[in-house]
Amino acid sequence: LFQLYFIYERVLTSLAEESHRQDSANLLIFIILLTLTILTIWLFKHRRFRFLHETGLAMIYGLFVGIILRFGVHLPQDLNDITLTCAMNSSPTTILVNVSGRFYEYSLKGEVRDSKGHDVPNAEMLRKVTFDPEVFFNILLPPIIFHAGYSLKRRHFFRNLGSILSYAFVGTVTSCFVTGLVMYGCVVFLKVIGQLGGDFFFTDCLFFGAIVSATDPVTVLAIFNELKVDVDLYALLFGESVLNDAVAIVLSSSIVAYQPEGDNRHTFDGSALLKSLGVFLGVFSGSFAMGAATGVMTALVTKFTKLRDFPLLETALFFLMSWSTFLLAEACGFTGVVAVLFCGITQAHYTYNNLSAESKSRSKQLFELLDFLAENFIFSYMGLTLFSFQHHVFNPLFVIGAFLAIFLGRAANIYPLSFLLNLGRKNKIASNFQHVMMFSGLRGAMTFALSIRDTATYARQMMFSTTLLIVFFTVWQIMSYSLAFYNRLHYLCCLVFSLLLKVTAPDGMTQKSTKHESAWPFRLWYTFDHNYLKPFLTHSGPPLTSTLPACCGPIARCLTSSQAYENAGQLHDEDTELILNDDSSLMYSDMTVSTDAHGMPTPSTSQAGLYSLARTSDDPLDRELVFGGTRLVLPTDDPSDPLTSFPPPPPSPPLSDPLRHRV
Amino acid sequence: LFQLYFIYERVLTSLAEESHRQDSANLLIFIILLTLTILTIWLFKHRRFRFLHETGLAMIYGLFVGIILRFGVHLPQDLNDITLTCAMNSSPTTILVNVSGRFYEYSLKGEVRDSKGHDVPNAEMLRKVTFDPEVFFNILLPPIIFHAGYSLKRRHFFRNLGSILSYAFVGTVTSCFVTGLVMYGCVVFLKVIGQLGGDFFFTDCLFFGAIVSATDPVTVLAIFNELKVDVDLYALLFGESVLNDAVAIVLSSSIVAYQPEGDNRHTFDGSALLKSLGVFLGVFSGSFAMGAATGVMTALVTKFTKLRDFPLLETALFFLMSWSTFLLAEACGFTGVVAVLFCGITQAHYTYNNLSAESKSRSKQLFELLDFLAENFIFSYMGLTLFSFQHHVFNPLFVIGAFLAIFLGRAANIYPLSFLLNLGRKNKIASNFQHVMMFSGLRGAMTFALSIRDTATYARQMMFSTTLLIVFFTVWQIMSYSLAFYNRLHYLCCLVFSLLLKVTAPDGMTQKSTKHESAWPFRLWYTFDHNYLKPFLTHSGPPLTSTLPACCGPIARCLTSSQAYENAGQLHDEDTELILNDDSSLMYSDMTVSTDAHGMPTPSTSQAGLYSLARTSDDPLDRELVFGGTRLVLPTDDPSDPLTSFPPPPPSPPLSDPLRHRV
Repeated sequence: LFQLYFIYERVLTSLAEESHRQDSANLLIFIILLTLTILTIWLFKHRRFRFLHETGLAMIYGLFVGIILRFGVHLPQDLNDITLTCAMNSSPTTILVNVSGRFYEYSLKGEVRDSKGHDVPNAEMLRKVTFDPEVFFNILLPPIIFHAGYSLKRRHFFRNLGSILSYAFVGTVTSCFVTGLVMYGCVVFLKVIGQLGGDFFFTDCLFFGAIVSATDPVTVLAIFNELKVDVDLYALLFGESVLNDAVAIVLSSSIVAYQPEGDNRHTFDGSALLKSLGVFLGVFSGSFAMGAATGVMTALVTKFTKLRDFPLLETALFFLMSWSTFLLAEACGFTGVVAVLFCGITQAHYTYNNLSAESKSRSKQLFELLDFLAENFIFSYMGLTLFSFQHHVFNPLFVIGAFLAIFLGRAANIYPLSFLLNLGRKNKIASNFQHVMMFSGLRGAMTFALSIRDTATYARQMMFSTTLLIVFFTVWQIMSYSLAFYNRLHYLCCLVFSLLLKVTAPDGMTQKSTKHESAWPFRLWYTFDHNYLKPFLTHSGPPLTSTLPACCGPIARCLTSSQAYENAGQLHDEDTELILNDDSSLMYSDMTVSTDAHGMPTPSTSQAGLYSLARTSDDPLDRELVFGGTRLVLPTDDPSDPLTSFPPPPPSPPLSDPLRHRV
Repeated sequence: LFQLYFIYERVLTSLAEESHRQDSANLLIFIILLTLTILTIWLFKHRRFRFLHETGLAMIYGLFVGIILRFGVHLPQDLNDITLTCAMNSSPTTILVNVSGRFYEYSLKGEVRDSKGHDVPNAEMLRKVTFDPEVFFNILLPPIIFHAGYSLKRRHFFRNLGSILSYAFVGTVTSCFVTGLVMYGCVVFLKVIGQLGGDFFFTDCLFFGAIVSATDPVTVLAIFNELKVDVDLYALLFGESVLNDAVAIVLSSSIVAYQPEGDNRHTFDGSALLKSLGVFLGVFSGSFAMGAATGVMTALVTKFTKLRDFPLLETALFFLMSWSTFLLAEACGFTGVVAVLFCGITQAHYTYNNLSAESKSRSKQLFELLDFLAENFIFSYMGLTLFSFQHHVFNPLFVIGAFLAIFLGRAANIYPLSFLLNLGRKNKIASNFQHVMMFSGLRGAMTFALSIRDTATYARQMMFSTTLLIVFFTVWQIMSYSLAFYNRLHYLCCLVFSLLLKVTAPDGMTQKSTKHESAWPFRLWYTFDHNYLKPFLTHSGPPLTSTLPACCGPIARCLTSSQAYENAGQLHDEDTELILNDDSSLMYSDMTVSTDAHGMPTPSTSQAGLYSLARTSDDPLDRELVFGGTRLVLPTDDPSDPLTSFPPPPPSPPLSDPLRHRV
């Protein structure tokens, strides 16, 4: 039975009000941080002073504020809260307190480490600044992930879907296990030499493997936005990083859900692992189905109502339906963030085509803004946490082990899988592509959010501190890439990239992957999507009356809008058309690849490439980067292309280089 | 000393997770409600089926869901929460619970009325659907109020500023006291006949007076959007209803802050009242200053940086600065909602001019969407509360008394004040205007939010239930107005309005209030604003070099942008120009008023007016409403005009009526 008695108490005046004021002040700190970040980003963009990426900026400002809060401010001991300390054997979510006949409800906020709370100055305030990690999962991550899904509407993504799914699923699981095993070795070693200050089980190692296997689309975007690499490489990397976030979330929660209890935690339990796998598949497919279902529903609603006459209503509906996916999935016990991702992809693929022009721009701008704010908020919070979080466990050996494990895990993901995929792919993934993918596996917001979610045990605290360092390293890496453009300080970094891309570049890039090069399940899917799904859910594509068999005539006529007939001749769907069309000149008409006269790069052109990387002039040709004699211009015709969204690229002038030819 | 022991306990499996799933499900209910509302609004708009206003719809859906949750769903008794009930002498905000050496923090959620909780079925679930009322104040109201302020950028608002301020301040305070006194009489009567089930003090009556004195800009907008009345009347009504929300908030919190304690509550305490007045003035001016300051800061930042080259950054900054006003005011102990209102007005008046075209539309669309969602959320929540709130106290006599008190309070606000204002105004407020203002004082979202904020005592619960009925009555009134357009069911309602406007319409409308007709403090302000503030904060207006004395030359040159010189000749600020310009033909060039040949309406034209009110044809002339022979077309040239924002009005054709003349 429970035992409950007082240990400690304090007196106060106006309780809820004071707490509300403090909450406002804390939030205000973040708003001011974000405002500062925005102004500095502008200043840097304005002065073409590109040595720092915006996420890095947000983080650095967060760091400064963390230092100030920790060491600079000395608040008088806060006497405004009555704190009753009671001792009992359980921590329920809700307790009812009877105050002279009236009942008050209290809800669990979380664990407080130290009951005395006096060892760290400003402990009270720091604890308040470090707010509920569930905020990340329920408020900040959904818009980021939705936006990533919503910007995935790229023909190149769907063309490489098979490889992307392989990397995201098989690759991430492999990476998780390899990282987990290496970490377990590291932990055993630490225990032997007596450097481990608490329990660290095998499931903890696997959990760590799962959270650090989530590579970040934000950082990938940030780097490749600057590097302007091949569209297929970009699609592979971006697609993988978006999907493996989803995989990592579900994987980590499956590991937590079925970790063996008590003494069994030390041993490897095969049946629990299988159970985890079942949970993983169930949760993933459930979340996927839910996201896709809401997307399809929105597409149907926007197609069959004439909501497009009222853009405000349309945008509101679009926003609410997308949000409801998250809530629906969470309410059913699936993963909201994963559902939101697939909802975003479905919305971009179908619903987007039904929206009015105004709603298209409204919804894009809205999600762009939310994404921008949420992302910068997370990064400034990361900076702040380094000093405001009070239970950091930094273990140098563990950190070194973690970096090694991540490196090995990523290698175990990319190389064997690329080898296997290349057996089936006609459009081979060149080895230089593989190296780039290997080194672009950076960790960001998702890894942070997953690691801060639970910091109750010693193992989790050590993981959190280590993860924070890993993410900081990622941001440093972004900075160094950006630096490389500006002042050639990180010459080496560019040299590596350009060398990686140089040798076999024409191999990997000039090959066309048409319908006949895709694997048959995907060809089947394309055909089905193009002939039935798109016409059913949107006004584009061939009318259903022409694609469905004659017996379904009445249904087809009922489902086909008059616009579809009008569009039938002229307005084909670009994505699928380009995939289904064998005319390679159409497919690459917007991509200019130039090699030298011999089709092979020379050392001198490689130097030219580096020079071109380092330029920051007003020359519009600056956008085309020359990697080892191969000049690439990324196509930017897709309206939801994340590359074109911010800032607008200067128009490309007509090119007159005699060596350049259209492929 | 505290005494604490267990009364009750329950066992559970996964605590936080289950609670999170329930929260998601509850929020999902609201999202589905809003989605349904949007679809129905569209259906009604599409079918030109205008008998129900959108807020009414949201409320009715809320009512249905409330009934279903209350009577339709029978959940098994929820065994998933451990609920510990402890008895002690105080209800602190935070308690620490010691569970075998670990400390967990619990925070106060609120009072639970009945510890048994079994008398109402689904009590647990209903309590969870009825979420924290502070959400209204911190999340839902700010965007609504900001949007109201942001749409106030109307020359007519500033032209009538003096009268608006008088109605908002003097009028609202008068109304509060009159209503409070009438209610006190009612309460004393109820006590005498033994119908009062608990304490009800004089301060409670005053508090009730304050909260029901907030007339709702939303409902005013909704009605006058349809009625298309005179712009000055509209400005007076809308301006008053926006500002008196602010006054009512501050007034009610001042009354609560300084209500006499204990036995003194029965008596009238003059010094406490004076203290309240001091608090009122302090809080109001503080909030005003804070809102204006952030607005001015945003204007300066957007003027002197070239942030307009990056619309995303600009919009993000605009959004964050506006939000920071709220937090800043709350953190300093002022009222966030009031600060946000003045911030909105300042942003519209200055910052809006500095924004890039894309940011202008982005920010407008963003706040429009937020306003739309928040407003519909509040109204569906209102509907839900009627059944989900478990402590309703409906007292028929009190309700009747309340309606009478509101009526008298509103009359005491409008008539004496209009009489006094007319002594000073050259552009008199006609008596029909006064009647319209009297009957347009509808109560909406703000009254609801203020009354739900505290429902701890018997008096507050009775107030809340009564307020809910008052707001329902308001929505019914809107519905009846809308109905009147459609099927002439509420013929009478229109007749009253058209008669009110008929008699002296040309008197009230054809008078021009130019610079010379405004009171001198406002003339002074206009001149100062036009010559110094606008040029300082924006790129428009005359360059400071021409308005500042010669000795300030260097500063003026430094603060004047090159654009200002370019604009100096051509792009005058419309607001102030029209006020300062004596050419009345310019001022009313966009307003067409027609009377019959004798300048007086006849019974037959009055009938024609009603007919025109009831029409729903495609005829673009439908927008012009004929009140008693006076045809009015509202000017819609202002880009931030709330009337034009939703839905877009059809273009007016050239008019050829020989009787029509330009005034």
